[in-house]
Amino acid sequence: MEKRKLETCFSPAMYKREEHINSIIVIIDIFRASSSICTAFANGATAIIPVEDISEAKDYKARGYLVAAERDGYVLDFADFGNSPFNFTKEKVKGKTIVYSTTNGTGIINLSSSAYKTVVGSFLNIGSLTQWLTKQDRDVLLFCAGWKNRFNIEDTVCAGAMAELLLSSELFTTICDSTHASLDLWSLASSDLQGYIEKAAQRSRLREKNLDDCIEFCLQPDFTEKIPVMKNGILVDNIL
Amino acid sequence: MEKRKLETCFSPAMYKREEHINSIIVIIDIFRASSSICTAFANGATAIIPVEDISEAKDYKARGYLVAAERDGYVLDFADFGNSPFNFTKEKVKGKTIVYSTTNGTGIINLSSSAYKTVVGSFLNIGSLTQWLTKQDRDVLLFCAGWKNRFNIEDTVCAGAMAELLLSSELFTTICDSTHASLDLWSLASSDLQGYIEKAAQRSRLREKNLDDCIEFCLQPDFTEKIPVMKNGILVDNIL
Repeated sequence: MEKRKLETCFSPAMYKREEHINSIIVIIDIFRASSSICTAFANGATAIIPVEDISEAKDYKARGYLVAAERDGYVLDFADFGNSPFNFTKEKVKGKTIVYSTTNGTGIINLSSSAYKTVVGSFLNIGSLTQWLTKQDRDVLLFCAGWKNRFNIEDTVCAGAMAELLLSSELFTTICDSTHASLDLWSLASSDLQGYIEKAAQRSRLREKNLDDCIEFCLQPDFTEKIPVMKNGILVDNIL
Repeated sequence: MEKRKLETCFSPAMYKREEHINSIIVIIDIFRASSSICTAFANGATAIIPVEDISEAKDYKARGYLVAAERDGYVLDFADFGNSPFNFTKEKVKGKTIVYSTTNGTGIINLSSSAYKTVVGSFLNIGSLTQWLTKQDRDVLLFCAGWKNRFNIEDTVCAGAMAELLLSSELFTTICDSTHASLDLWSLASSDLQGYIEKAAQRSRLREKNLDDCIEFCLQPDFTEKIPVMKNGILVDNIL
């Protein structure tokens, strides 16, 4: 049996839409959009509508939707809450559709809409997600959100952890330098992930803004089995 | 004294021109453009004119210039030679001006022309180059050519080796995730660089095309003290 192709993209700036039409794309933005989205579904959210523009998020708010919106870590004034996974509690999100707009995460969710399928990944759902990917018979692109089109360490290390699990199934193969680099960085990080992440610029940004209470949580593997998947422009629970 | 900023860019797709107007940019494309350019100056070339378009390279050829030109590793039919450092022998290049066009290298040399200064780096001139950089009192961007806007391992590892030397001077500081990742990959690669590079896609490409005879040479530190620098659109020997 021919092995499936595993690739990694470090930034939306490097993404080539036409190369991934038939692939499953995994969006990774662990600090904090992809972790928050996984948490929202774990806590019973029905759907998440990713929107790029602030004005669009405002329109939804006016129409009565629950809106999560942030830029550079800060909650926007009209929004119900921001981008911390701790915001997406059962009390707030169970049975709800949430409109969601963040600095990096929602942009690439929309960017990857031309792929065969787009799912959201983080350490929080890494086990169930990689298990599911092995059963789909599709090439996989691990798509790191990065930071404003830059490479970032935390998403790369998460991609490396996913790549390790996928390659260990022996169903995938890779000739992608970004995947090899992710695997190597994960090999350096895995024994003390929180310590390793200390050098990440986003780690410092969140600390400076007093938004770093969720770091430990975001690095926790297998908090949930939910796999958020894009359907007709909206994220829903894959198991539904 | 305030420390100078060290940053790394993994691909022309991620480059933000306006952020590096006052920096020195080091172009890294070790397989093979930046290694070949260093070798050309080591062997007495007077100047190198980087051109992006094949038609421009052809025009120069018609006007009697020595032309090195390749695409995807192959010498173009009208050119005098291709992109191997072994082409740039003393016999061929001493005292000559060479017109040079390659898949990745020459594009980013022109892309970075708005910076304070642009120089060409490789393992071949790593010692003299990093020494020189410590004396310039400027922020530094290590700019990896990558492969068709993708991340590549070989340029990243070379950037990591340069970053290690620059940071050890204690004149530089970095909060750049790409630089941290380069340093970490270099720490994994340094004890057996040729073995580590085996996983690079470009390593395989060069092998398949029988163009890999120069790999060992390109990984050799301090073959030359020459530092090619861009002046008015032309690369010249910095020491002149």
